[in-house]
Amino acid sequence: MKLCMIGARGHSYYVLKDLPVLNTVKLTAVASGDADPSNLLKRAEQWQPRAYADWREMLDREQPDILSVDGPFELHAAMCIEALKRNIHVFCEKPIALNLDDLAAIRKAYEGSSATIISMTAMRYEPAFYTAYQLMQTGRIGKVRLIQTRKSYKLGQRPDFYKKRSTYGGTIGWVGSHAVDWIQWFSGSKFATAMATQTTADNGDNGELEIAAQCLFTMKNGVLAQASIDFLRPANAPTHGDDRVRVVGSAGVVEVELGKVYLTDAEGFREITDLQQPERGFFEAFVGSIRGECAPPVSPDETFETTLACLKAQKAADERNIQEF
Amino acid sequence: MKLCMIGARGHSYYVLKDLPVLNTVKLTAVASGDADPSNLLKRAEQWQPRAYADWREMLDREQPDILSVDGPFELHAAMCIEALKRNIHVFCEKPIALNLDDLAAIRKAYEGSSATIISMTAMRYEPAFYTAYQLMQTGRIGKVRLIQTRKSYKLGQRPDFYKKRSTYGGTIGWVGSHAVDWIQWFSGSKFATAMATQTTADNGDNGELEIAAQCLFTMKNGVLAQASIDFLRPANAPTHGDDRVRVVGSAGVVEVELGKVYLTDAEGFREITDLQQPERGFFEAFVGSIRGECAPPVSPDETFETTLACLKAQKAADERNIQEF
Repeated sequence: MKLCMIGARGHSYYVLKDLPVLNTVKLTAVASGDADPSNLLKRAEQWQPRAYADWREMLDREQPDILSVDGPFELHAAMCIEALKRNIHVFCEKPIALNLDDLAAIRKAYEGSSATIISMTAMRYEPAFYTAYQLMQTGRIGKVRLIQTRKSYKLGQRPDFYKKRSTYGGTIGWVGSHAVDWIQWFSGSKFATAMATQTTADNGDNGELEIAAQCLFTMKNGVLAQASIDFLRPANAPTHGDDRVRVVGSAGVVEVELGKVYLTDAEGFREITDLQQPERGFFEAFVGSIRGECAPPVSPDETFETTLACLKAQKAADERNIQEF
Repeated sequence: MKLCMIGARGHSYYVLKDLPVLNTVKLTAVASGDADPSNLLKRAEQWQPRAYADWREMLDREQPDILSVDGPFELHAAMCIEALKRNIHVFCEKPIALNLDDLAAIRKAYEGSSATIISMTAMRYEPAFYTAYQLMQTGRIGKVRLIQTRKSYKLGQRPDFYKKRSTYGGTIGWVGSHAVDWIQWFSGSKFATAMATQTTADNGDNGELEIAAQCLFTMKNGVLAQASIDFLRPANAPTHGDDRVRVVGSAGVVEVELGKVYLTDAEGFREITDLQQPERGFFEAFVGSIRGECAPPVSPDETFETTLACLKAQKAADERNIQEF
């Protein structure tokens, strides 16, 4: 299988991480998607890919089977659509679209394509979250009732494209996609309603970038859920992100906090130290699913639903109303 | 000062706990407020109070200076109003009112009275929360931007009065008052908007009791806040409640989790083990404020505002809309 890559802004390192074990996948070419391709070329140099200035030309000439889309955020949708129209499987950085029109256009392209698409919501596969999911799946907390998630990032110095909605999309989608994906994943349900608050106040001269947001969701199966999203993690905190989930069931609670897993159930409260790893890497599992060897690590439907939920929550915050799905 | 007490359903043990150091306060009489006064009589027996079947008769005959109101929830408002009309200072279990009309009536009685009123939102004075507040107050986390709170209780076996709105009020007010009070306290602001979700599904045959609720608030000073409230704590968890707060500022984060305090700031992440205690007990500080010796542990305005925020959040969840303040 031939693989091409556009850009390396975000999670496309999952592709490069898994390439060494993917003997049937060959990285043939890269394009930056914007001005400077050096970042991706440098990261991928051991595979000696060809480099293109024009990503459309790359698709035409290379005719890849798989495309990694991780260039400018505002071009995700156009790149996904071009690839799907050419029946190229797409592994796209989250969020795949910055607005509802673009999302609808991607979905339409997907429905007319023989190819598949998933987003790089790979935090599902981090050991603590994966272990929490396995505990939930094996019935250790009973029926899921309530889900709380947290994504807290350090702000640091941000390139200018973070400062405008048109090139950034917004904090609920960019930071929050993982949190919203966990909600969908742990609840096993689609979204029913979204409410949200957000603020750009005191955002360190970062223009339209929302420094914090809070989202409430109800799920179609009755689960209540919440996502807390912010760029307020202190610069000297031990990790870039403080990523958490609390899944409350009828028979127990599983929590992920700072990379650790805690279970409260009929046996009391304790840390679960035996963390589990998925058999395959996130990109490896995507390739495996294309080859019919395994389920995808996240489905196209889940990819669309997470993107939709982020955009609806953002709309709720922008318009100060409640969004129905 | 003469003290009378009605009922012992909730936090009136704060009164009994502080009485031994309050030499100027004498507990003269108790009334149950409902059928069985034995609970309070037993708890208060060392002070040998008189017992009344009729709480109004107690007020008329005893003419107390202070009244502790901790009987049937649906009678809080009537008891507060009767006391305030008699210029008796009121120490009332939270929430002080189960609906907005009752709250308005209490406020009106307060405005026409020479007496004061506060609610028993005494979790402010628990060492971990009090220490977190001191850290915030001394500027350790900079300007407060985001507040998350959690109240999670074990459901256990509940008396029938929890099963009806008319006698229980609702979970956002009953469980959530502490969480909402923390939000007001740490933000130093009044509330601007409330949104909320709640559910009675799978509530263990507890009628109208909401098993879980999630609230979003914006504060008038721009702080975003959130309260997670549930009765889903497993029966074998080490404590009855899992009470948490996360206060995120421009220069740091202070968190209370399971009775411990954590600070993340320019010096990194660490537990703060030197927990601070208030100089006076919560009821002792209330008495002190009446005597002009100190500030009250919570003000009448804060008491009204916390009650209002709980009722507005409940209304938002009931009516599925956004409530403005």
